[in-house]
This record gives sequence, C-alpha cells and structure tokens, in this order.
Amino acid sequence: MKILTESFVVSTTGKGTYEITEEIESIVSKSNINEGVATVFVRHTSCSLIVMENADFSARTDLHAFFDELVPEDTPYFVHTYEGGDDMPSHIRMCLTDVDKNIPIIDGKMVLGTWQGLFLFEHRRAPHKRSIAVAVSGI
Amino acid sequence: MKILTESFVVSTTGKGTYEITEEIESIVSKSNINEGVATVFVRHTSCSLIVMENADFSARTDLHAFFDELVPEDTPYFVHTYEGGDDMPSHIRMCLTDVDKNIPIIDGKMVLGTWQGLFLFEHRRAPHKRSIAVAVSGI
Amino acid sequence: MKILTESFVVSTTGKGTYEITEEIESIVSKSNINEGVATVFVRHTSCSLIVMENADFSARTDLHAFFDELVPEDTPYFVHTYEGGDDMPSHIRMCLTDVDKNIPIIDGKMVLGTWQGLFLFEHRRAPHKRSIAVAVSGI
Repeated sequence: MKILTESFVVSTTGKGTYEITEEIESIVSKSNINEGVATVFVRHTSCSLIVMENADFSARTDLHAFFDELVPEDTPYFVHTYEGGDDMPSHIRMCLTDVDKNIPIIDGKMVLGTWQGLFLFEHRRAPHKRSIAVAVSGI
Repeated sequence: MKILTESFVVSTTGKGTYEITEEIESIVSKSNINEGVATVFVRHTSCSLIVMENADFSARTDLHAFFDELVPEDTPYFVHTYEGGDDMPSHIRMCLTDVDKNIPIIDGKMVLGTWQGLFLFEHRRAPHKRSIAVAVSGI
Repeated sequence: MKILTESFVVSTTGKGTYEITEEIESIVSKSNINEGVATVFVRHTSCSLIVMENADFSARTDLHAFFDELVPEDTPYFVHTYEGGDDMPSHIRMCLTDVDKNIPIIDGKMVLGTWQGLFLFEHRRAPHKRSIAVAVSGI
C-alpha cells in the first residue's frame, strides 16, 4: 500500500470558484497509485470544495448568484459580523457545500465524469491564501 | 491491505431518489474487507448521492418537494438554461447535497444506522444512465 | 498499513452543535498512523456532521438560526410529521449538511485548520444518544 500526502495553496482574488482539478490530478499521477482514493480537504471555514460542471462558465455564474440569494449578506439577525457582511454568510455557504471530497482512483486516474471539475469555492470578498491538503492512498 | 474498485450504472426515470444500498453492500461483501472504508462517488453534475431515511417513503416525498421549492426551476436570473428549466437547478441541488459518501466498515459491514440508506438523487426530468464508482479499501 | 476503527456515543440535549474534535484527535493519536485519512460517520438521519469555526460561539448561534429559517418547522406541505414538527426538517438539514467527514492525516495529526472544529449538528429537540463511527487508515 502507498500513501502520498501533499498540500498546496490557492490564491483567491474574491468571491467565486477556482478550478483545482489539474493540481489534484498531478498529485494523483505522482503517487503512482493505480487503485485507491484521493481525499481533498480545504483547511478553512469561509471557503469550500465543490465538484461542479467545468465546461460552461455560465453554470458557475448562476451558482454564485444562487448562493448570494440563499445566504444574503444583509441577513438582519446575524450577530457574527466582526469581519463584515460576508463573514457569517461565508461560514454558512461552507456548511451547505463541503470541505472534503473523496474520489476513487481506477486504472491510475480519478473517476471524475466528463463534465466534473474540482473547485475551490471562495466565499470572502478579500483576497485569501487557501491551503488544500491531499491524501492519495491505494495500491 | 486490499482494495476493490467497481462501477455500476443506475437507470433513472425522472426526478427522485433511487436506493443503491444493496448494490454497495454487495460490493463490500465481495471485497472480503473486514475493517476499512467504502467510498461511493457519482460521476455527474446533475444528480447526487445522499444518505437518507429508508423506512418511510413520505420522508423522501417531502425531501423532493423541499428541493423543488429551494431551487425553483423558474428562477428568473438563471442564464445556464440550454437544457431546460431543470438544467441549472440540477447543478445547484447537486452542490447542496453531495457527490461522494464514505462509510466506515467494521466487522465486515458498513456501519449504516438502522434507518440509513444510500440513494442516488436524480435532479433531471428525463431518464438518464448514471455511473457510480465505488472503492472499498481496508484489511 | 494500519487501520483503527472505533465508535463512540454523543449524548445531545436538544438542537445545536456539539464539538467532537478531541474525541477524533484521541482516536487518531491512538492509531499511531502518521500519514493517512480519518473518516468520521454519524449513523443517524436526523443529525449531521459539520466542520465549523470553533473559536467564536456566535458563528454557531447564527448557523443554528439560519437553518431554522431555511427549513422551517411549520412548512405547510410536509407530510412526514409523525414525530413532530422537527421530524422532517431534521432529515432535510442532515441532507443539506453531511453525515461523513474525511480529514487527511499528515505528520501524525489531522490537517484541520486553525479555526476548524468537528461538530455533531443535532436537529432534534429531544435528547438523543448519537453513535459516531471512525475509521483511521494509513501508514
């Protein structure tokens, strides 16, 4: 059995989705693991990880708009607002999506479907450095 | 350490939830793994995987209705609508639920609780063939 | 390769979030695994697992309030209400968050970020005993 763990940083420039599929594929490839699982984890509470359609950008535009509507920045009853109007919505949007993704590896490749990409979903307005940890295990 | 990877297809006939617990249990059983983890992953961006109560169908009826209300098909600001009114809501409902589930295996069985079943959550109106990949690893 | 599987019970006293980070860290530490993954799974359909900010309690207060608004107990079209007004909302809040979390282990420790804690998110009003299963695997 082999395990490769690795971390990398994504620099975000505001709210939106940032594709990280290639970074993960490159770590899986380096692991030389043929059958197993890639576990991807983002180490923050105001951004998240999603698998999303990566062909047509408009799908992500609508996704961003929907989350802005679902968890509005001006929600009147929020008390956790020290860091601004995007503080609490960021935590909630993170909880509604996810911090970890686990993708089986078959024949040396992640089994992502044709239209699936892995994205960091940044929920804060200001630029951030986001740390992502990856563990690839298998044989 | 042992790993068994396998894929199978679920044919859906429209929006709703389709139980796949038995298919996953059968793969776990075939793996002969006693202690480990089963990773289940759906390879699409317009359906998802959920763990849901599997005893009383009315719980899933309400779940379907809730998601229809939460992400309405006639959302006026959606621009990603090439494939119809259920196109963009499908991607969002997928992001709000999940594409992967990871269940510990103890004493040769997944530790699903008494009322927990694994379901494919189909978000498209038209019939689809949905590919699900499974990796079981452990000892 | 090593695997340690273990289960424990959290006694909840009503709706809210209950931190379980120390319980999981203690199992990871006992495993003596240096590089790998910790898989945490809650065996119920009316509570869930989240990774959430664990420094300032007000973030969780707002999270609780948001979920009460998003999935209201008095939703008029719910039919799955045998166990009371918090029955169906519990299942939906579970689906909108998650039942499993997978955290890479690097240098003998889970890679949780500075502000990340693991929490059981109880969605029922009455006290419950909640069973959580953990599988730690790696080298």
